[in-house]
Amino acid sequence: MLYSLLNGGKRIRPVLVYLACEFCGGSAEQADLPAAAIEMVHSYSLVHDDLPAMDNDELRRGKPTCHIAFDEATAILAGDALLTSAFELLSQPGERYQPAQQLAMIQCLSRAAGEHGMVQGQAFDLSHVGKALTVEALQQMHALKTGALITAALELGALAANCGNSDQLNALRQFGQHIGLAFQVKDDLLDIEADTVTLGKPSGSDQVRNKPTYPSLLGLAPCKALLQQLLHQAEDALKPFGDRARPLLQLADYIVRRSY
Amino acid sequence: MLYSLLNGGKRIRPVLVYLACEFCGGSAEQADLPAAAIEMVHSYSLVHDDLPAMDNDELRRGKPTCHIAFDEATAILAGDALLTSAFELLSQPGERYQPAQQLAMIQCLSRAAGEHGMVQGQAFDLSHVGKALTVEALQQMHALKTGALITAALELGALAANCGNSDQLNALRQFGQHIGLAFQVKDDLLDIEADTVTLGKPSGSDQVRNKPTYPSLLGLAPCKALLQQLLHQAEDALKPFGDRARPLLQLADYIVRRSY
Repeated sequence: MLYSLLNGGKRIRPVLVYLACEFCGGSAEQADLPAAAIEMVHSYSLVHDDLPAMDNDELRRGKPTCHIAFDEATAILAGDALLTSAFELLSQPGERYQPAQQLAMIQCLSRAAGEHGMVQGQAFDLSHVGKALTVEALQQMHALKTGALITAALELGALAANCGNSDQLNALRQFGQHIGLAFQVKDDLLDIEADTVTLGKPSGSDQVRNKPTYPSLLGLAPCKALLQQLLHQAEDALKPFGDRARPLLQLADYIVRRSY
Repeated sequence: MLYSLLNGGKRIRPVLVYLACEFCGGSAEQADLPAAAIEMVHSYSLVHDDLPAMDNDELRRGKPTCHIAFDEATAILAGDALLTSAFELLSQPGERYQPAQQLAMIQCLSRAAGEHGMVQGQAFDLSHVGKALTVEALQQMHALKTGALITAALELGALAANCGNSDQLNALRQFGQHIGLAFQVKDDLLDIEADTVTLGKPSGSDQVRNKPTYPSLLGLAPCKALLQQLLHQAEDALKPFGDRARPLLQLADYIVRRSY
C-alpha cells in the first residue's frame, strides 16, 4: 500500500482538493482528509490497472509496478485495502466536519470511483482495445476513466470547505470537466512525444497496444489545438472569480505543459 | 457484479444485519441498506479471492467463478465496483438514518473489510499456505478473514437500529466472535466431509493446497467438540436476553449444522 501510494506521483488530485477548498474559503486542514482519500483511490486504480490481466504494465513512475515489486496477489489486496481505507478515512469520527459533510464527501468519491464512474471507464477501455472508436466515444470513456475523479477532487474540496455557493460549485465542475479532458489529451501526446525515462513508464505503449487515442483519431496538430482550446475553456469557467481563481488556473497550466 | 452478487449465496451476513437490527428494536427497512452493503463487500471478497493469483478457484456455489464466466479483468473490476458501491449505498442521501448513523455504519464496514480486517486476514492466509501454523495463529487469521465481517454484520444491525444499549451491543459482539469462529471451523469440516456437488465448490481443496485448517491441527473429533463449545459460548452471550435472542440463536444453530 505504501509502496504504491508514496512513490512520487504528481499528486494532481489532492492538489485540486486543496485548491478548491481554498477557493471556497476553506482551510488546508479541512482539505487534508479528502486529499489523502482521493490519492488512495487513485493509487488503488493504478495498482489494479497495471495488473497482467489489465494493462500488464511493469513500470510506473520509473519504478517496478506493485505486482512486479511484490506479487500479483499482494497487488490485488493492496489495491483493495487502499480503496477501503479511503472510506475508512473519510468516515472517521472527529470535530473537523459535520457528519452530513463527511457523508457528502463519501457519496461524491464513491460515485466518481465506482460502476458509473472510473470503473466503468476502465471496463469500457478494456473492451475497446484494438477497436475503432469515434472521438465522441473516446471522450465519453475518458470523462469516466479520468474526468470523474478529477471533477470529484474539486467537489471534495468544495464540500470540505462546506461551500454553499452554487456559482462557485458549478464553475468548479465546469473547470474540472475541461481540465480532466485536457489531462487525458496531454497524456496521449506525452505517450508519443516523451521518452521512457522522462515519462517513468514505457513511451509509445498506446500505439503498441493499438489503443485509440486523441492523436491517433485527430492527428498531432489538431490534438495540440484541442489542448489549448480546453485550457481556454477551463480559464473561462473561472474568469468571474478573478484573482481568487489564480492558483487553480496555474494548475490547469501545469497540466497542459507538464513533461511527464 | 450481478452474476457474483445474486448467485444464490447463503446470505448469512445480511441475515445477521436484519436479526441484530430486530434484536435492538429496529425495523427491517432500517436494516435494508447495510444488509445489501455487507453482502456486496462479501461478494467482492469472494470474486477477488477466487482469482488465479489468489486461490485460483473455478467453482463457487456450483457455478463458474466470475473470472471463468467472464475474464480476469472483468472479475477484478466487478470486485472493485462492488466494494465501491457498498459505500455509495451507505452514503446515499435520505431520511431513513441520521447522518451520524450512516457515518458510523461506513466506519464499521470499512474497518472490518480493510487493511486491519478482512484484507489483512487474506494476506496472512496467502503468506502461510504450506507453512506450519499454531492453532492460535490460525484463529487470529480467521478472526480477521471471516470473523471481522461477521461481527461487523451484527454491529451494522445495531447501528441501523440506532441502538444505544451497551449491554446489547457487547453481547452482540461476543456472539459474533463465537459464531464467526464456528463458521470457519464448520467450513473446514465441510471441506473434508461434504462432497463437491453439495458444497458447490471442490471438496478436499484445503488438503490439496496444504492449507492449515482446524481439523488438520486438532484432529476431527476435537474439532467437532470445539464447534459445539463455540455454539454454547454463542448461546451464553445472548442468554440474558431470553426469547428476544431466539432468531439469532437459530441462525447460530444453522451455522454449525449446515451441509454446505
